[in-house]
Amino acid sequence: MEDFRRFAVALSAAAFFGVASIVFVGVWVSHYREGVAWDGGPGEFNWHPVLVVSGFIFLQGLAIVVYRIPWTWRFNKLTMKFVHAGLHLLAFIFAVIAMAAVFDFHNAAGIPNMYSLHSWLGLVALTLFCLQLVLGVGIYLIPVTPAFWRAAFMPLHVYSGLLLFGSVIAVALMGITEKLIFGLGNPKYKDSPPEATFVNVLGVLLVVFGALIVWIATRPAWKRPSDQVQHTLHTEGGGVEESKVGPVLSELSDGADAEPWGDVRRRSGKLDDQDN
Amino acid sequence: MEDFRRFAVALSAAAFFGVASIVFVGVWVSHYREGVAWDGGPGEFNWHPVLVVSGFIFLQGLAIVVYRIPWTWRFNKLTMKFVHAGLHLLAFIFAVIAMAAVFDFHNAAGIPNMYSLHSWLGLVALTLFCLQLVLGVGIYLIPVTPAFWRAAFMPLHVYSGLLLFGSVIAVALMGITEKLIFGLGNPKYKDSPPEATFVNVLGVLLVVFGALIVWIATRPAWKRPSDQVQHTLHTEGGGVEESKVGPVLSELSDGADAEPWGDVRRRSGKLDDQDN
Repeated sequence: MEDFRRFAVALSAAAFFGVASIVFVGVWVSHYREGVAWDGGPGEFNWHPVLVVSGFIFLQGLAIVVYRIPWTWRFNKLTMKFVHAGLHLLAFIFAVIAMAAVFDFHNAAGIPNMYSLHSWLGLVALTLFCLQLVLGVGIYLIPVTPAFWRAAFMPLHVYSGLLLFGSVIAVALMGITEKLIFGLGNPKYKDSPPEATFVNVLGVLLVVFGALIVWIATRPAWKRPSDQVQHTLHTEGGGVEESKVGPVLSELSDGADAEPWGDVRRRSGKLDDQDN
Repeated sequence: MEDFRRFAVALSAAAFFGVASIVFVGVWVSHYREGVAWDGGPGEFNWHPVLVVSGFIFLQGLAIVVYRIPWTWRFNKLTMKFVHAGLHLLAFIFAVIAMAAVFDFHNAAGIPNMYSLHSWLGLVALTLFCLQLVLGVGIYLIPVTPAFWRAAFMPLHVYSGLLLFGSVIAVALMGITEKLIFGLGNPKYKDSPPEATFVNVLGVLLVVFGALIVWIATRPAWKRPSDQVQHTLHTEGGGVEESKVGPVLSELSDGADAEPWGDVRRRSGKLDDQDN
């Protein structure tokens, strides 16, 4: 119960900082900047930070921790895999539109594309995110992939997911830096006008959101409990075959793996890996 | 043996990208910029990227993975704790001098301090790094701290360490972005002169180095094996008391936790946590 309270606090804090980031980016483009439009002008550029923060960062963060939310444990694993993949797909679509907006804006304004470290790392992150999505669907949602492959690939899937999430936030911080330098003329960024301070705070919010999501995603005690987990595979005939995997064996005896939530959780590396 | 080869490849790759980053930052400031000096001029600013890359990033990365290097397993745990803490202390000293250099340069040139998101997050990272160092020494090197506290604090210690490491790289990428925008006049950053491309590559090298360090640090199979681990505490009288902690019990039976290196490793969360 104590641990559930901690989880609830961490998740609420993540939700707070995530929503605050979206509010801040909204106020930034609408109050300090030109609002949004799709006309090749600054309003089109403004879609870029709005969609990155709300989609590529917030939705991705939600997708990462969605398995951990106890409310979702009533649904079988396949359903939650679709939610996990669906949220990532949505995040990807937001990110693609965000990129299109900035390319369009650059082309209309005669600004070169892809010269900055921000653009290099942003495009690499988007490409690897797409690869991660395709591989994730291929390995965990396509019924033909052997269970051994699924387990073997899981550490890389989890690592890549968190690395990409962190990288996208880092790239966003570089983007904020670029925009404040290029966008602020008189007073300049170094004169700390209200917009500069406000958007710096947005950067801090994004970092705290990211830190909380990674914390939640890496606490073993907050994993979806094993007795609710179902490894669900579509059969070749298109039906659904569900095979419950029971709790595993080795509850270690020294108390270090005590289960404060009262659930019997899976402890083997192989099965833990499949529960991410 | 196969797993050792993988570890060796990952560590060699990390060393390659880390050393390449140091070479790149050296070439940047000596070939494209004004070299280094301590005179309040641009040469003093140049110490900032040099010390951040070589100290706050490279040495910190090395400090993080030093327990994992099999060659160090011949030394007892207390020795390795001192190496771990010593490398972090060295990284901290490099970082403090790096900050002093940039404050000095700003003050001499009449440029405001602490206005940018880069400076905000950099100072927060340095402060938290100092806190992490003090807490780490207080909890893991001061003999009076109870073993329970050490174990309880370990997940936070590991998480904070990796978060700070990633954040420092993110802050460095923002710094690169700032410096290329402010430092390149004619041709500008957007015109992609050789310096811009060269320093963008430095940014990519830093990201790859960081990704490899985090990968190495988060593979459970690459942990220091338990039978070589000694929980060594100074006694109150100033002597040294060493208590070997034997291998733990639960080698899980499903093969997922097979030990390809032939070592018996500790599997309980509590003891694993102490082995980071």
